[in-house]
Amino acid sequence: MTIKSSNIVWHNSTITRTDREKLHQHKGVVLWFTGLSGSGKSTLAHAVETYLHKINISTYVLDGDNVRHGLCGDLGFSDQDRVENIRRIGEVAKLLTEAGIITLTAFISPFKIDRDNARKCLPHGDFLEIYCHCPIETCEQRDVKGLYKKARAGEIPLFTGIGSPYEPPTRPELIINTEKLTIEESIEEVIKLLKEKNLI
Amino acid sequence: MTIKSSNIVWHNSTITRTDREKLHQHKGVVLWFTGLSGSGKSTLAHAVETYLHKINISTYVLDGDNVRHGLCGDLGFSDQDRVENIRRIGEVAKLLTEAGIITLTAFISPFKIDRDNARKCLPHGDFLEIYCHCPIETCEQRDVKGLYKKARAGEIPLFTGIGSPYEPPTRPELIINTEKLTIEESIEEVIKLLKEKNLI
Repeated sequence: MTIKSSNIVWHNSTITRTDREKLHQHKGVVLWFTGLSGSGKSTLAHAVETYLHKINISTYVLDGDNVRHGLCGDLGFSDQDRVENIRRIGEVAKLLTEAGIITLTAFISPFKIDRDNARKCLPHGDFLEIYCHCPIETCEQRDVKGLYKKARAGEIPLFTGIGSPYEPPTRPELIINTEKLTIEESIEEVIKLLKEKNLI
Repeated sequence: MTIKSSNIVWHNSTITRTDREKLHQHKGVVLWFTGLSGSGKSTLAHAVETYLHKINISTYVLDGDNVRHGLCGDLGFSDQDRVENIRRIGEVAKLLTEAGIITLTAFISPFKIDRDNARKCLPHGDFLEIYCHCPIETCEQRDVKGLYKKARAGEIPLFTGIGSPYEPPTRPELIINTEKLTIEESIEEVIKLLKEKNLI
């Protein structure tokens, strides 16, 4: 490669998101999975990531496992902290998207305004809201982490769906009925959406 | 691809950092550029990114431009906020590294303890501290952004090198004398380091 000396030239030659997308041979985008605890967000996000990875797409899943103890380790569960938690996740998703990655986020993210703010921090079309729809009764029956039981016992006062509301998306890009659809069918729905949008 | 139905199987099949590194055909790592304002951190980080991108390496630069108004937009310049600023940058660099990206950070990051904390949040060997060494007199003569002038006039009370100390790294992976070396030579030093560490 030819290297030019001037600092100014170098600053002009900054690599852009488009350059990175060309390298990865696909666009960056955020798939924002939202839904009740137990609705299958994280399972579906990881399953979609696996599918995408196998077709050579650069991916990353943001979820409680890698965010709660790190970037958001200083936050608790007060209203203010929950807002800040989702705000930071939106901002990090934006950075990953600029890096040319398909970013999948799996958080309950119960409040419409917080999801809308995350949407707003990204360029138009880069935020695809995927609502994992499942009746609370089914989520509670599954109760994979035993959280509903604790919430019913009053041990988690602001648990979404019990002590705190979940505001369903009004105009999500996709609704997945995770009670009725198999995981294979759910993955297919997401992939169909990405293809329709010419993202993969 | 074969899709298995069980949620548990899906959780087991989570894509790992190693998988992503294989896809990108290189490792993820953080190049943490530190030094005074005007020492050439950002210029060098972007120049190295350009070099790496041209050899098909997935990269991202975190700097004031994409962090200060977004993820860290709620932070000011108090001691506490500066610590939190660097902490978040370290955590985001970690996430990008897990995504299989070579992440370059360009922040003054004047305090040793904050840089050491960023180092600690990453697996051993994933944090390469690159000290852009340049006498303050030279940085002040350059004064690209006019900040030294403002600081001398008392308009920026805690400006690093004037109202607030810069603690040079004691054991950085690399010291670049940006007063003496050209940008081409500086890039070469960084690339040599990455090759020595078998990262590219």
